[in-house]
Amino acid sequence: MKMYQKPIQLRERRRGFHLITSEIINAFPEITELNIGLCQIFIQHTSASLTINENADPTVRSDFEMYFSKTVSENDPDYLHDYEGSDDMPAHLKASLLGSSVTIPVSKGKFALGIWQGIYLCEHRNQGGERNLVLTAWGV
Amino acid sequence: MKMYQKPIQLRERRRGFHLITSEIINAFPEITELNIGLCQIFIQHTSASLTINENADPTVRSDFEMYFSKTVSENDPDYLHDYEGSDDMPAHLKASLLGSSVTIPVSKGKFALGIWQGIYLCEHRNQGGERNLVLTAWGV
Amino acid sequence: MKMYQKPIQLRERRRGFHLITSEIINAFPEITELNIGLCQIFIQHTSASLTINENADPTVRSDFEMYFSKTVSENDPDYLHDYEGSDDMPAHLKASLLGSSVTIPVSKGKFALGIWQGIYLCEHRNQGGERNLVLTAWGV
Repeated sequence: MKMYQKPIQLRERRRGFHLITSEIINAFPEITELNIGLCQIFIQHTSASLTINENADPTVRSDFEMYFSKTVSENDPDYLHDYEGSDDMPAHLKASLLGSSVTIPVSKGKFALGIWQGIYLCEHRNQGGERNLVLTAWGV
Repeated sequence: MKMYQKPIQLRERRRGFHLITSEIINAFPEITELNIGLCQIFIQHTSASLTINENADPTVRSDFEMYFSKTVSENDPDYLHDYEGSDDMPAHLKASLLGSSVTIPVSKGKFALGIWQGIYLCEHRNQGGERNLVLTAWGV
Repeated sequence: MKMYQKPIQLRERRRGFHLITSEIINAFPEITELNIGLCQIFIQHTSASLTINENADPTVRSDFEMYFSKTVSENDPDYLHDYEGSDDMPAHLKASLLGSSVTIPVSKGKFALGIWQGIYLCEHRNQGGERNLVLTAWGV
């Protein structure tokens, strides 16, 4: 069994949902060493998250931003944690709704994603800055 | 350390939440080879998802369909991605809210699920067709 | 490759969101044996869940309880599964929205969490009782 781990940093993105599949693949060529295995992508932040969804039409990503920002409202008067900006508490909630990691099967050295699946960076802050990920792959 | 991986296909189910625990166990007898380990179940689609919840009363699964379809509305005029049917964009959103995979501990050759836990296929399309999963287990 | 697995029991907590990072670390010293690896924390219940979020300001955890209890309403007349108490069906829904497990990279014998990240037990029942977890770590 082999195991590889690597921290990487994503450049700052604007608030919204961004396809990062190619960037992950390029950053982690060790995956090609695995005949079968898994790869976990973990984000070390509490106001951004990761998910898997459609890799084709960019309006899906726009609709994600619209939906989550409509559903998790800013300026809810019931928030107690409100001194880091109106986008802060909603960012924490969205991060947990979507999750801090995705884990993807690896088969014959490649991500065994469905044909329409891609990895999204979900940036929930207006100015989130760079984002740190930890990539871990294991297999045979 | 052992590792096993297998693609399987689930037959078409109607829109809603479906218990698939037995089907997974029957499809993957390799799990019985593991004294301790984990098993990941990954769905290769962006309009269906997987989750773990109550395995007993079927009204829980009905209430899941009711809740998610009420919460993630069809025909929201703010959707930009609307040309694949009114159930399409909501399906993408539900898929990310619930997630593309579940990972379950294996202990003494069996899923170490709680007594009330089962695996749900969450079918978010009206006619989603067959669904492809990748099963991966590893352990000692 | 090493692998460790251990069941642990958390004492009863009141309904809400609770930081359990230290408790997990103290219960699982085997993690210090791993130079690189991963640790999965799995909850064997369908009315409580696990997530990763801010470890500092306790008002974030209060706002999580406020948000999820406002969003997943009790006493929705559309619930069919309503005979185990008004907090029961919402607890199942919240459990799947947040998820049954978290998986955290391990680096140099420690959780590779971001500086602000902690592990939350999300207790969705009014009287949930003790909660059983299964901890599994693997790596080299």
